[in-house]
Amino acid sequence: MALQLASFVLRRQSPLAGLRLLSSSAAMASPKVAVVLSGCGVYDGTEVHEASACLVHLSRAGADVQCYAPDVKQMHVVDHVKGQPVEGESRGVLQESARIARGDVRDLSTLDLSQADAVVFPGGFGAAKNLSTFGTEGAAMSVQPEAERVLKEFHAAGRPVALCCIAPVLAARLVPGARVTLGASGPQWPYAGSQEAASGWGADVQQCHVDEVCVDEKNRLVTTPAFMYDTKEFHRVFDGVGKMIGELIKMLK
Amino acid sequence: MALQLASFVLRRQSPLAGLRLLSSSAAMASPKVAVVLSGCGVYDGTEVHEASACLVHLSRAGADVQCYAPDVKQMHVVDHVKGQPVEGESRGVLQESARIARGDVRDLSTLDLSQADAVVFPGGFGAAKNLSTFGTEGAAMSVQPEAERVLKEFHAAGRPVALCCIAPVLAARLVPGARVTLGASGPQWPYAGSQEAASGWGADVQQCHVDEVCVDEKNRLVTTPAFMYDTKEFHRVFDGVGKMIGELIKMLK
Repeated sequence: MALQLASFVLRRQSPLAGLRLLSSSAAMASPKVAVVLSGCGVYDGTEVHEASACLVHLSRAGADVQCYAPDVKQMHVVDHVKGQPVEGESRGVLQESARIARGDVRDLSTLDLSQADAVVFPGGFGAAKNLSTFGTEGAAMSVQPEAERVLKEFHAAGRPVALCCIAPVLAARLVPGARVTLGASGPQWPYAGSQEAASGWGADVQQCHVDEVCVDEKNRLVTTPAFMYDTKEFHRVFDGVGKMIGELIKMLK
Repeated sequence: MALQLASFVLRRQSPLAGLRLLSSSAAMASPKVAVVLSGCGVYDGTEVHEASACLVHLSRAGADVQCYAPDVKQMHVVDHVKGQPVEGESRGVLQESARIARGDVRDLSTLDLSQADAVVFPGGFGAAKNLSTFGTEGAAMSVQPEAERVLKEFHAAGRPVALCCIAPVLAARLVPGARVTLGASGPQWPYAGSQEAASGWGADVQQCHVDEVCVDEKNRLVTTPAFMYDTKEFHRVFDGVGKMIGELIKMLK
């Protein structure tokens, strides 16, 4: 058993990967959906529960899912117990994203219109630190080049894009007049300031609760607040993400 | 907004944490459930989707959840893209577990019968590398001292314990005659060898599919295979974990 475990750690793909590929090709009805990750962990990467909820709901909808992440260094590494950056430590966004993707993650530079019918961006500070500079530059932010290219290509082609938590700032920044939600206002909405930034770029910012979803039919964007809402009720975030994925899948039919 | 984000990263608890504590104390009907993590990432820590599924289902059941992890170094760090250990890198189990717990994780040494009505151990190689030595020693494995103490204390007190994926080896090793599942046999069950080890310790090993759950009423143990089944159908793992949590909650009523 020890040897079996060790050999598993060393191999990169399941022996069934080829079979799965065949069965996916055979089932032409399955929409191909790319999930773009930005690390692993709410404070410096992808929020793991939002990513997991995306993968569960996409899987239940029968989507053929592939995870991607940019092959760049994280802005920094945060000790998630202390909530403080760790001096002198460096981690790769692609490598950490693979923790969520169970090893099966591709370089974001390989994602184009030939690879997916739709794209999903889960949230977490990785979207504001590794996929953009929103976390440090606020309204003056820029989007990571590969994330910008992907979002613009899919939008220009009319392919739907779903984003949750803080990730909708990417669409608000790049898609003129995008209708998005970044949550609501009040004591459990600590990041409501992001709504002002997005409005300043000309976005049509809608207030939504954690169990609501914002649909921009014209721009084919679907957004939900997820953990922009400060909650320990994980199932409410899970269900909100479920509604987002549901609307995305509807756009593909 | 940039400042707001920065200040969030620096603070350790939500301003509402106190309020939540009060409301939890007021709602005496909520069972208190401890979730024991072992890092963050399938190959060297907790499998993030299993942990997330546990938290979603516990939250939906109205449980008052607290995450714990041992304050020890990981056995090693695995590059999840390459599937290979990284030489010279070291990470703390508690710090990495905090990525799943969104910062709210406690030292496992503080978990005792006064803190929880039940305990949940999600899987991932962390259970076989950081909570035990099963990954390297197989049938000769030992259990990490704090994990062993917690499991024995809760079992002796008749408090229910749920474990999934490879984590049931902990109960199989420590609870004489424990009835557990470690999955089934066949091409999508790469770790079936673990069943022989558990049988060798005297465990009553049941074959279950990913959507089934094994209940040991006498020992108050609930187990499900989760990602012992090699699948990309995340929702099937999510649902199997849901059944496990459902049986655990039933035991608390």
